[in-house]
Amino acid sequence: MTNGARSLQAALWAHTMSHFEDADTEETVTCLKVTVYHPSQLQSGVFQSIRFYSREKLPSSEVVRFGRNPGVCQYTFQDRQASRVQFCLQLFKKPDSSVLSFEIKNMSKRSRLLVGGRELGYLNKADLPHRCLVRFGQYQLLMEQEDGESLEFFETQFTLSPSSLLQENNGFPQSPIPEYGGYSPCSTHGTSPTEMDENES
Amino acid sequence: MTNGARSLQAALWAHTMSHFEDADTEETVTCLKVTVYHPSQLQSGVFQSIRFYSREKLPSSEVVRFGRNPGVCQYTFQDRQASRVQFCLQLFKKPDSSVLSFEIKNMSKRSRLLVGGRELGYLNKADLPHRCLVRFGQYQLLMEQEDGESLEFFETQFTLSPSSLLQENNGFPQSPIPEYGGYSPCSTHGTSPTEMDENES
Repeated sequence: MTNGARSLQAALWAHTMSHFEDADTEETVTCLKVTVYHPSQLQSGVFQSIRFYSREKLPSSEVVRFGRNPGVCQYTFQDRQASRVQFCLQLFKKPDSSVLSFEIKNMSKRSRLLVGGRELGYLNKADLPHRCLVRFGQYQLLMEQEDGESLEFFETQFTLSPSSLLQENNGFPQSPIPEYGGYSPCSTHGTSPTEMDENES
Repeated sequence: MTNGARSLQAALWAHTMSHFEDADTEETVTCLKVTVYHPSQLQSGVFQSIRFYSREKLPSSEVVRFGRNPGVCQYTFQDRQASRVQFCLQLFKKPDSSVLSFEIKNMSKRSRLLVGGRELGYLNKADLPHRCLVRFGQYQLLMEQEDGESLEFFETQFTLSPSSLLQENNGFPQSPIPEYGGYSPCSTHGTSPTEMDENES
């Protein structure tokens, strides 16, 4: 490196440090870490639209929709058996809390949503615990919340699990898994899986 | 009326009746009746974007936003002191209920929202009672819910009140009205009423 290059580098470093020292203290941001699993994820590519590992920053006023329709859903399942909007997440603040919380609402008329041990029907909602397994059909989504200071923004980060989240020794019941009529693709709904779903958008 | 006109009319009537008799039984629809009042509504036209009296049908999946920004709000207040999004309403279904319920969430960082006797800060939410006075700043909105059978749709209907909803003998406390720092246009926020609001969309 020449002397000129060295002094340029030193000047750039000094400039960067002065900006770093003057900048506002950066707020930490609430992050929802979502680990997903579907038994045919490798063959069918149900999660191929989801960008794994990178964090995405969203405004806390956003309603985050999960489902088949990419026109209205931020995170899509490429699967004819998924509802156009399967469920949505929203941020809110509990009365005496300084951090954000998540609410989950089942938007599917066809599938029940299992949130922890609780079953949600169409338009039923629940507050999401800090660590919670969400299930519908053959989908498993482990949702884990990391608290942050910001009330304006939050982040999401997706991870693909190579194996079922029920088979690991991770604190979730392995068996018996309750049978849900509308869940299995082999159920009576199987003959026309999207029929009852036609009016959803 | 000629004989020809008469038989045409009879044929049309028979046709209409046969369609009427064959049609599916029409579901009743949940309606949210909103009676609004602002002390300077006549001079300032804060409600001039709202279509009064006609019912509007909306899908139950819709997040209904009230505020200053017509790009994101279904119902707008033409008022520089209103937040871009002041609050939002959403439909949900209680676990053992067959009808829809409303949730209200304060989306304003600047103004508190008074829902009945309860005060909501930024991102705080509450289930809306069947009859409830909602207030922020000088705005008064009496919300009354009429239950319906449909889970797919609901309706809204707005009425303009000629007088304060607090001054009538309608079951709401007339006085004392608590003083809320962020509420009055004459408060300390008054020097720059939209400043804290800049990041809202």
